[in-house]
Amino acid sequence: MDAAKAAAAPVRGSVTMLVALAKADMAEVDRLIGLRLQSPVSVIPALADHLIAAGGKRLRPLLTVAAARLAGASGDNCLKLATAVEFIHTATLLHDDVVDGSKLRRGKVAAHLIWGGASSVLVGDFLFARAFELMVEAGSIRALDILAKASSVIAEGEVLQLTRAHDLNLDQATYLEIIKAKTAELFAASAEAGAVSAGAPEPKVAALRSYGLNLGLAFQLTDDALDYSGVAETLGKNAGDDFREGKATLPLLLAIARSGPREAAFWERAIGRREQTEPDFRRARELIVGAGALQATLDLAADYAWTAKAALSIFPSNDWRVALENLADFAVSRSA
Amino acid sequence: MDAAKAAAAPVRGSVTMLVALAKADMAEVDRLIGLRLQSPVSVIPALADHLIAAGGKRLRPLLTVAAARLAGASGDNCLKLATAVEFIHTATLLHDDVVDGSKLRRGKVAAHLIWGGASSVLVGDFLFARAFELMVEAGSIRALDILAKASSVIAEGEVLQLTRAHDLNLDQATYLEIIKAKTAELFAASAEAGAVSAGAPEPKVAALRSYGLNLGLAFQLTDDALDYSGVAETLGKNAGDDFREGKATLPLLLAIARSGPREAAFWERAIGRREQTEPDFRRARELIVGAGALQATLDLAADYAWTAKAALSIFPSNDWRVALENLADFAVSRSA
Repeated sequence: MDAAKAAAAPVRGSVTMLVALAKADMAEVDRLIGLRLQSPVSVIPALADHLIAAGGKRLRPLLTVAAARLAGASGDNCLKLATAVEFIHTATLLHDDVVDGSKLRRGKVAAHLIWGGASSVLVGDFLFARAFELMVEAGSIRALDILAKASSVIAEGEVLQLTRAHDLNLDQATYLEIIKAKTAELFAASAEAGAVSAGAPEPKVAALRSYGLNLGLAFQLTDDALDYSGVAETLGKNAGDDFREGKATLPLLLAIARSGPREAAFWERAIGRREQTEPDFRRARELIVGAGALQATLDLAADYAWTAKAALSIFPSNDWRVALENLADFAVSRSA
Repeated sequence: MDAAKAAAAPVRGSVTMLVALAKADMAEVDRLIGLRLQSPVSVIPALADHLIAAGGKRLRPLLTVAAARLAGASGDNCLKLATAVEFIHTATLLHDDVVDGSKLRRGKVAAHLIWGGASSVLVGDFLFARAFELMVEAGSIRALDILAKASSVIAEGEVLQLTRAHDLNLDQATYLEIIKAKTAELFAASAEAGAVSAGAPEPKVAALRSYGLNLGLAFQLTDDALDYSGVAETLGKNAGDDFREGKATLPLLLAIARSGPREAAFWERAIGRREQTEPDFRRARELIVGAGALQATLDLAADYAWTAKAALSIFPSNDWRVALENLADFAVSRSA
């Protein structure tokens, strides 16, 4: 077995195979990203590149490419769409970090702390507009519609989260609504748009949308859990950030729902009023683990990963399908 | 002559005729605006409506409608585009006010002071996404392309202005580049998209784009002048805002270029270092008027208004053309 084949061999709970299969496609996506974030206004590529070059896993454009290839695409229609998807994602990250006042992103100082919040807002707008230019060039009005709708759903989810972020009584259903809109919708739209660009029949389009949606939920719930168990190098952000920002994520909400009066007073102070002292994060972590809330969150994530994989059963079991199944396992098997 | 006809009669330097001609179209645009800013997340329509219901002149959607009608459109293709144009404009206003920290917009307290900067950023994102959904429904991929490109040019202009805003040595050419991108481009794209949606031949599309571009420049330069001569009720913002924010607009830049060493020290303190005292705005106004900088700005605006009108000569002289000519006169004849 040669090196390329070996690299593309299935490894459960890893993105290795998907990355190897999509290598040439993603190299072209990277080239397009570098090309299309150019502007005579030099702060735009500087700021955008700070975030984009920091990498991340490029999961969403990978999804677009993989969905298109699994659906039988042989041409390059999906590559501009994949680039557009990464631009939309980057725009939301830039705006998110301003909105949340986050200090770290992808292991680097957040852009707004270097260039200011105003620049981050405007460069986000630029990337969002560029994304739509790319979609026009990609030539699928339906894919464009899918990503436009996803973009307004994401903004709705962000606003909903903003208004409910510090609400200790947020119920699980509303919480899932928020992360569905804020995170999973773009995963769903990325895969769906890829399938559409490949001219896939409706059941396959729906299957890839379902895969993306459930994968997105699995990723977000695992991220929420990792914030109480991970370390900064793995997360690309500080562990405990959600706690310190007083963000009501599922591990926290479940622990609060299961707590007695003494713990309730702790949560009310640390999250409700955001009066925190240094040892509070450790105590929060102990309470969350002790209440089984961390495990419950991970279990729910595993359910969604399973549903994501099940959605792929409509496709023949080829390399792309196996690679996407591995990605679903990867979503929930990351650990600190 | 009946009342409707009287209202539609040409009045030089007024929008009355255009507003009367477009009345039914704009009523439908208003209905679409109200309908399409709805969201189950209640802060979104509340915040968006605060700004949109405050009115403004709806100049950009008016341009889209008027361009389409002047180019011979009989159907309703232009109405969703016009709504999209107003959403894009509103999104940029929301983000602008956060970026500039402006306190007043359209005579009302700026949205970010009521709902917070985070909500303003995210509701802007929502409106921007909704705009693209509307454009997809309008069904003209070319109009969508025009407005997507305009959106990235606007963001570039905003970033350029941000990095050069307090630069006392900004030259007139760079200043005009900034307002072309930041303001005139959306006027141009609004008219161009309207013409395209009407299926107009290329020379007419180009003429309406040129009309919009020059009209936008005339409007912005007049606004810049009014900031040193207007009063709050006319402006919908406080006179002197540009000065107090240390914004390098053309009246200021021309006065600075024409000033002696004593005035130079004043400008360096008041704009360069933004150390201002109460009587400074009055002194700035006197210097700007005395240097002929206010008049020079208004003269330049008049040139652009003239060029805008000249671009319409390709069209037969019907009501819509006369109304657009009046609009160009209106752009430069507003006063405090």
